[in-house]
Amino acid sequence: MSDLVEKINIVRIQKDNIQEKQDRIVRETPLTIVVNGEELVTLLCLPEYQRSLAVGFLYSEGIIKEKSTVKSLSYNSAKGVVWVDLNGSVEVSENFTKSRTITTGCTKGISFQKVFDEWEGEIVTSNTTVEVKTIFSLLSNLKIKDSLYMTTGGTHTCVLCNNNEMVLFREDIGRHNAIDKIIGDCILNDIKPEDKFIITSGRISSEILFKVARFGVPILISRGAPTSISVKLADELGVTLVGFARAEKLNIYTHRERIK
Amino acid sequence: MSDLVEKINIVRIQKDNIQEKQDRIVRETPLTIVVNGEELVTLLCLPEYQRSLAVGFLYSEGIIKEKSTVKSLSYNSAKGVVWVDLNGSVEVSENFTKSRTITTGCTKGISFQKVFDEWEGEIVTSNTTVEVKTIFSLLSNLKIKDSLYMTTGGTHTCVLCNNNEMVLFREDIGRHNAIDKIIGDCILNDIKPEDKFIITSGRISSEILFKVARFGVPILISRGAPTSISVKLADELGVTLVGFARAEKLNIYTHRERIK
Repeated sequence: MSDLVEKINIVRIQKDNIQEKQDRIVRETPLTIVVNGEELVTLLCLPEYQRSLAVGFLYSEGIIKEKSTVKSLSYNSAKGVVWVDLNGSVEVSENFTKSRTITTGCTKGISFQKVFDEWEGEIVTSNTTVEVKTIFSLLSNLKIKDSLYMTTGGTHTCVLCNNNEMVLFREDIGRHNAIDKIIGDCILNDIKPEDKFIITSGRISSEILFKVARFGVPILISRGAPTSISVKLADELGVTLVGFARAEKLNIYTHRERIK
Repeated sequence: MSDLVEKINIVRIQKDNIQEKQDRIVRETPLTIVVNGEELVTLLCLPEYQRSLAVGFLYSEGIIKEKSTVKSLSYNSAKGVVWVDLNGSVEVSENFTKSRTITTGCTKGISFQKVFDEWEGEIVTSNTTVEVKTIFSLLSNLKIKDSLYMTTGGTHTCVLCNNNEMVLFREDIGRHNAIDKIIGDCILNDIKPEDKFIITSGRISSEILFKVARFGVPILISRGAPTSISVKLADELGVTLVGFARAEKLNIYTHRERIK
């Protein structure tokens, strides 16, 4: 954990009291992803699980669809680079540009329907369920594990769960990265998503919902709020969306049949 | 405000109580920015102040540097498009690609020093100050104004202040957009940043710090946590960075001389 936290001197003011003290802040670091020798993007992230982040990011961007596409993967922490070599002639730049800008064609603007029409993934049909009491129990256990958040206040947490167990626990300074780290780890370790669910501390916008749906996770539980598009997408794409999950309370927005 | 909120039916579970009810969620909408007839990007955002968002985004990406570069600006809410025509032959695509990926050259990875070396803005030297009691007072007034957050839990707030007044109040589903809306409004309305400060609900990562420093705002106050790079950047670029500003408490990370 020490690599993830930096100690600095700050001035803390509390009412009329001024105090110089040492505080801990979360480490942010750049990670450059190089695909087939071509520099694709530099992400700013928490410096752990960098290979997983690279693989998860490539999956979420539609550049890879399965583990076998990844021929080799190497990481140099001093340089902050992950090199990914892919099998076959993947048109990385073209796919990437496309996904970055949600092409709308003819500059006609974009509607929800248009976003949905461009969906290339499958509808999530898993009949996995989870009990409300399991969610509440996991949320209270999560508080104990959330040490980096507790120390620095600067991270989002994302947890992959299976029945009443946490399978993977990942943190990052960004909501998007935390989810991509989970997805990348699943791909690299052959962990199947269809009988799992995800608990995240981050708010659910359309981009987060797309990541989860594309990977085929049937249930997404957030401690925060969803947006209007994320609720529509969850409904259409077959994802059970739960928000404001805190202590003994939660809201179910879509596909309630998976919550018992 | 009604356009910004959507009513939906949800299931709320609280302990053993299951209730079907109507709830309000924040509206997320795509905004396509077209520059000189070329589609640049589609942002997902709260549907208000879209012209400001477009201008602020172009400024933060280094594509425009002043109001006079913008020849015309039009917005069609049904299409979700802002058309921006710029004077002169701005190389939009090249600038944009560069800023999106933080080019590192020769795939050698990226260091903090490298990020800093590529800084093209000026160091912030304003001798504006703000009193701690003013910050606490503004934070408590902010709670009253924060109605969209209170209603939906799904927004970040960004406020531009001058002495003890709120000059601009902007919200968005994304931290980055809320700051860009403030910057865009300042540019369009000739509001100078050097004697102002910003209060934001969002965490401070390097991207947020860069936006604020590039525009020349001397003091940035967040209700959340900063990251390690944002603190280094604030120190180097001359920005006073305050975090965890809540009720009667705050942390000063850099350039404390502006906090009285």
